[in-house]
Amino acid sequence: MSWPVLIVGSTALDSVETPAGKVNDALGGSAFFSAAAASFTAPVHLVGVVGDDFALEQLDFLKQRGVDLTGLQVVPGGKTFRWGGRYHEHLNHRDTLFTELGVFESFDPVIPDHAAEGPLVLLANIQPSLQLRVLDQIRNPRAVVTDTMNLWINIDLSGLKEVIKRTDILIINDQEAQMLTNEQNLLRAGRKLQTWGPRTLVVKKGEHGAVLLNGQDVLCATAWPLENVVDPTGAGDTFAGGFIGALAAAGEISDRTLRAALARGTVLASYCCEDFSLNRLSKLQPEEIASRLEQFRQLTDFAL
Amino acid sequence: MSWPVLIVGSTALDSVETPAGKVNDALGGSAFFSAAAASFTAPVHLVGVVGDDFALEQLDFLKQRGVDLTGLQVVPGGKTFRWGGRYHEHLNHRDTLFTELGVFESFDPVIPDHAAEGPLVLLANIQPSLQLRVLDQIRNPRAVVTDTMNLWINIDLSGLKEVIKRTDILIINDQEAQMLTNEQNLLRAGRKLQTWGPRTLVVKKGEHGAVLLNGQDVLCATAWPLENVVDPTGAGDTFAGGFIGALAAAGEISDRTLRAALARGTVLASYCCEDFSLNRLSKLQPEEIASRLEQFRQLTDFAL
Repeated sequence: MSWPVLIVGSTALDSVETPAGKVNDALGGSAFFSAAAASFTAPVHLVGVVGDDFALEQLDFLKQRGVDLTGLQVVPGGKTFRWGGRYHEHLNHRDTLFTELGVFESFDPVIPDHAAEGPLVLLANIQPSLQLRVLDQIRNPRAVVTDTMNLWINIDLSGLKEVIKRTDILIINDQEAQMLTNEQNLLRAGRKLQTWGPRTLVVKKGEHGAVLLNGQDVLCATAWPLENVVDPTGAGDTFAGGFIGALAAAGEISDRTLRAALARGTVLASYCCEDFSLNRLSKLQPEEIASRLEQFRQLTDFAL
Repeated sequence: MSWPVLIVGSTALDSVETPAGKVNDALGGSAFFSAAAASFTAPVHLVGVVGDDFALEQLDFLKQRGVDLTGLQVVPGGKTFRWGGRYHEHLNHRDTLFTELGVFESFDPVIPDHAAEGPLVLLANIQPSLQLRVLDQIRNPRAVVTDTMNLWINIDLSGLKEVIKRTDILIINDQEAQMLTNEQNLLRAGRKLQTWGPRTLVVKKGEHGAVLLNGQDVLCATAWPLENVVDPTGAGDTFAGGFIGALAAAGEISDRTLRAALARGTVLASYCCEDFSLNRLSKLQPEEIASRLEQFRQLTDFAL
C-alpha cells in the first residue's frame, strides 16, 4: 500500500512572463506544484498558508485527486505570498521582479496530527527554519526528502546545513551543489554533500536532466526533449513531487524504486513546462503519464 | 563482417594547457582521435598529412590495431599542423593560443584506391572544401558521417551546407546547431538540419551528453559522469570515432545499431578526457571499454 506523503512548502500566486506569454496571480508555489505531481500515485497531505484573497476553488482539482488540505492555513485579512518573474529569451535565466511574502512572513507550519505519523516527508522550497519546525513535529518518517534553492545558501547557510543533516534524500540543482561545496565537478560536489548527511542525492541540471547518487551508485537521466517550453516555473518542484510520489507508491526506497522515481519526476516536470502555472498539471491524465514514461524508457534505452 | 571505415581529418601536434597540467607538441588532430577510437571494432583507413618533423613511431599503436596509414602523406621539408590551446578553470571554455597550418595549407587528400570502394566514411573536422574533395573520390559509400566545427560556419558556410547535403549522419555540437539554424531549441534545430540532407543527426552537448535524431525518432544519452577531467581535447572526435566504429562492426545502420553507437561513442569520449592527447586511448584495452559500456547501460537503465 502506498505510503502517505506530507508536503510542506510555499503556496503562492505567481505573475510570470515568458516569450510565450504571461499570467497574473496564477496558482504557484513549491507545495502546490509538488502536490499536484505526487497526487497521481500517493495520498498527499499539504501544509502551507494563504490569505483570504486566495480563491480556494483553484484547488478543487487537488481535492479531487485526494489531496488533504486540512493543513493549509487561511489567514483572515492576510495577503497570499506573491512572486513575479520574467524569463529571458532562452528560458535559461529569469529575473525576479517582486516578492511579497504576505502571510508567509509570520507562517508557523502546523502538521495536522493525522498527517504527522509515518509519512514520507517532502520539505519543498521554503525557509530552512520552517523546514526544521516541520521535522520537529513528525513522528517516524519513512524518509525526509528536501528540496532547496540558492536563496537559502546566501541568507541562512547554517539553517540549511542543519536541514541537510536531517535529510535522507536531498534534491538540489547543479549550481546550488557547486555553490554549497565549492566543487565545480558535480560528482565530487555530490560526494561531499553525501558526507553532510543524505545517503541519496538528486542533482538537477534543468534541460540537461539529473544525476542521482545513492550510496556509491550513480544513475543519470536526461530531461525529456521538449520542443516547446511555455513556462519552466515549478518544473523543479514538480520533479520533486513526481519523484516522491513514485517512492510512496512503491512503498520502498531501493535502487529499483529510485530509478522509477527519477523517470517519473522527469516526465512530470516535462508536462509542467508545457503551459503556465499548474494549467497542464491540473488537466493531466494518468494515461498520458504512462505513455510518456514508456517513451522515456525507449529514448534512453541502451540495453545493447 | 565489419565494414571498412575511411577517416579523413586533421593530423596534428597539440600544445594544451589545462588545470591538470600541460603538454607540448603532443599527438592530436581529429583524424588521429577518431581513428584510435574506431580501430577497436573496425578496419580503419586514415587519410591526412604531416611534415617530416612528425615522429611516425607515435602511430605504432594505431598500426598494431590494424589502422592502414598508406593514405597519410608525409611532406618532405614540411611542418606538421600545430594547434595550441588553454582551457579555463572549469574546462567548459578554451582559448586558441595559436594555429599553424603548415602542410595543411596545401593539403590535397588522396584516397588510396583500395580504400575508396564501399567504406563507411567519417569526414572528421577539416575544411568543407577538402571534405567535398574526399566525397568525389569515394565509390559506393555505406554512409557518409560528417563531423564539423563552428569555424567553418563562420568562414565557409556555403561549403559546409554542400557537405551537409551529401551527409547521411551529421555529428554536430549544440552551439553549432543553434548557430547554423537560428533555433535555440535543440530539437527544432535538429529537425531543421534534417531538412538540409541528413536523415540522422547527433547533437553533442559535451558534459551533458548527446541527442540523436533518426528520422522521426529521438534518442537521448547522458555523458559518462567523470570525476576527474584532465583534458577534453579530442573528446568530440573520439566520440565520432567510437560511434562510427560501432556502426561498422554492426554492418548495419538501424535504430538498434545507432543506440549501440551512441553508447560506444560516449564511453570512448570519456576515456579520452582522462589524460592528455591520445595517452589514454593508446593504452586502452577492449575489456575496459566493455566494462564501462555495461556500467553505462546500468546507469541509464529505466526499464521500469
